[in-house]
Amino acid sequence: MGDVTIDNQRYRERFEKFSEIGATDREGVNRPSLSNENKEARYTIVEWFRDAGLSVTIDEVGNIFGRREGNDADLDPVLFGSHIDSQYNGGRYDGVIGVLGSLEVIEALNDANITTERPLEVVAWSNEEGVRFQPDMLGSGVFCDIFDVEYAYSREDKNGKTFGEELERIDFKGDTPSEPRPLHCYFELHVEQGPFLEQEDLPVAAVEGVFGFSWMNVTFEGQANHAGPTPMDMRHDAMVATSDVVQAVRRITATEGTDLVGTVGSVDVWPNAINVIPETVEFTLDFRSYDDEVVETAVQRIQQEIEWAAEREGLKYEFEEIMRIDADPFDQGCIDTVVESIEELGYDYTRLVSGAGHDANYLNKICPTSMIFVPSVDGISHRESEYTEWEDIQVGTEVLLEAVQKQASKS
Amino acid sequence: MGDVTIDNQRYRERFEKFSEIGATDREGVNRPSLSNENKEARYTIVEWFRDAGLSVTIDEVGNIFGRREGNDADLDPVLFGSHIDSQYNGGRYDGVIGVLGSLEVIEALNDANITTERPLEVVAWSNEEGVRFQPDMLGSGVFCDIFDVEYAYSREDKNGKTFGEELERIDFKGDTPSEPRPLHCYFELHVEQGPFLEQEDLPVAAVEGVFGFSWMNVTFEGQANHAGPTPMDMRHDAMVATSDVVQAVRRITATEGTDLVGTVGSVDVWPNAINVIPETVEFTLDFRSYDDEVVETAVQRIQQEIEWAAEREGLKYEFEEIMRIDADPFDQGCIDTVVESIEELGYDYTRLVSGAGHDANYLNKICPTSMIFVPSVDGISHRESEYTEWEDIQVGTEVLLEAVQKQASKS
Repeated sequence: MGDVTIDNQRYRERFEKFSEIGATDREGVNRPSLSNENKEARYTIVEWFRDAGLSVTIDEVGNIFGRREGNDADLDPVLFGSHIDSQYNGGRYDGVIGVLGSLEVIEALNDANITTERPLEVVAWSNEEGVRFQPDMLGSGVFCDIFDVEYAYSREDKNGKTFGEELERIDFKGDTPSEPRPLHCYFELHVEQGPFLEQEDLPVAAVEGVFGFSWMNVTFEGQANHAGPTPMDMRHDAMVATSDVVQAVRRITATEGTDLVGTVGSVDVWPNAINVIPETVEFTLDFRSYDDEVVETAVQRIQQEIEWAAEREGLKYEFEEIMRIDADPFDQGCIDTVVESIEELGYDYTRLVSGAGHDANYLNKICPTSMIFVPSVDGISHRESEYTEWEDIQVGTEVLLEAVQKQASKS
Repeated sequence: MGDVTIDNQRYRERFEKFSEIGATDREGVNRPSLSNENKEARYTIVEWFRDAGLSVTIDEVGNIFGRREGNDADLDPVLFGSHIDSQYNGGRYDGVIGVLGSLEVIEALNDANITTERPLEVVAWSNEEGVRFQPDMLGSGVFCDIFDVEYAYSREDKNGKTFGEELERIDFKGDTPSEPRPLHCYFELHVEQGPFLEQEDLPVAAVEGVFGFSWMNVTFEGQANHAGPTPMDMRHDAMVATSDVVQAVRRITATEGTDLVGTVGSVDVWPNAINVIPETVEFTLDFRSYDDEVVETAVQRIQQEIEWAAEREGLKYEFEEIMRIDADPFDQGCIDTVVESIEELGYDYTRLVSGAGHDANYLNKICPTSMIFVPSVDGISHRESEYTEWEDIQVGTEVLLEAVQKQASKS
């Protein structure tokens, strides 16, 4: 397969052009799901898919598929892609390189006049980021039968507009049912969103699976008294108990499993005034590991810590685990395909487990799946300063081209 | 002076009637400064002052004075009162008992046909709470030359309405200049807003002064990364450093001075999402003690702790002390007058220092001043559940009546 190659100039020009849609002043993009900028990005992708000879289908939740027939129409297709919606003022790379990279794979095969045995399909999943409409990975979730279509349509943004209404408004509510269908396998090229590849000075990784995680909401309720006349021993301060738990998260991550991470990301204080003792604090907890038992132990330990903190400070508390997802190992065959492709191309690489969730998680439930990671400079993502060296994007896309060809030639 | 006595039935009926203005469902009142409910409360007070024979003056920032002439018009008046604006959904007692109690003192003297040597003036200060227009104690602050009138007028609420506009709207911008004038002394009856009197089962306290305090704003700035793929040792988490400082506040209050209190009351996190490491946390610090050196040591120690926390977590930080007020001892003569009054009436009592600020702080700068405290059940104030036993309000008002007569008879 050595004769097929990506056209770096075409690829990069397309990336630069795409980055102009919803461009921000600080080198990022603002294309949240179903916004006008997301609409423009969607139209551009559909046009480019068609220009590359793909037959385009939009499904009922706005997932965009482009199909290239193979020699044997009876074989299940190889699917690959990612997403084009962004965070509010997010980065240019997250998702985009997976979709434009997949398109470049098609173009490279077109240039080389190669028809694969299996059909190929590229995809841009709908509403991956989940910043405007929760939950994230909604489009791939419906496609993989995790969510109902009606559930997706009913999701509201903070202005009360629903996903269904907005999908219709931007004219991307397709006729094709969004539901599982036979797929040979799924690949997704993505930025790492973590620091490992850059730290090790490697251009690419084969992704073996995704961390499991637990999300929790906690509320401490004490007593809002005047910060002056209330002596320390009569206080019931919800912020003090919260800070106990933040410290406990650090202790737990330091003593349970080497890959465990823990975060208190959201903290809301009431009444939140300089001279009033905090009565109520609502906060979130996030624990992740590739070992489900490590997550379970962390959840148990933090519940104990919350109880102790409430008792010390004389507070009521509520604890709710709002989501628990088990660690998700990808398909060994697909991982091997990625590894072999990298080795044949002669690049240095490592194997990684993803700390973040991706559309690939849901695809992994309905077909063999793996991912290809390229480095994120400083591990930064979800921000305008997100950056990946173009050379690394090239490497990742070459690996994708190779892996797709390998799987598409298998009967 | 034993023949003069308050009329408990009249007093209590007035209090109940006044509590209906802006009454909330949960036994509180909602009469923030210059609201329609505050306007109604002001009109009621003016009417009741006039009914009691007082000559009413409204000054240019809305302070309401009611004057009763004495035998000698050349003597400086004895001033006493408090405020009638409330917190949002605040309590019935805070400020109100000081104004209605002062009115009852006048009524009692009227009933007994007593004319004091000195003129008497009762006052309802404008904008004491500072919840709608900052700073608090604005009316007494202008009167005592702490703030300019124009500064007061320019204060904006969160909807951009100014204090000056709103004062005009409710028709309480008077013609009389708000400025210091000769006063013999000032007394203020107020709820304690702390737990000491209730703990000691005492009905009343002579207040010897007010805590000094320091208010500080702190900002930690780290890096907002994805809570999944970012390993613990690469995090720059502003919430972790904030929790270090919350813990340090507790350590410092436990080791510096017996009356030192410290509070982190307001905490704002950005971006405040369950799966993103907090990049920025802005929070406040409040330290108070009656010993200025203790406050100074606490401020120095917390600055060191902030620096250490930032260093450990790899953060930038900003620290600003936004206010420092020294401890404020009241006038010994006025304190003695309150103590003698209590002793003559035969009540058990204690001497207290106030942890909270009051209009009396500013008055203390222009004339001899003291305060009378009555118990707050559970030490609660600034909330609808604020409560003081009526018997204790009676005691405090009898003490005020006695103290006012003593000072008004002095030439």
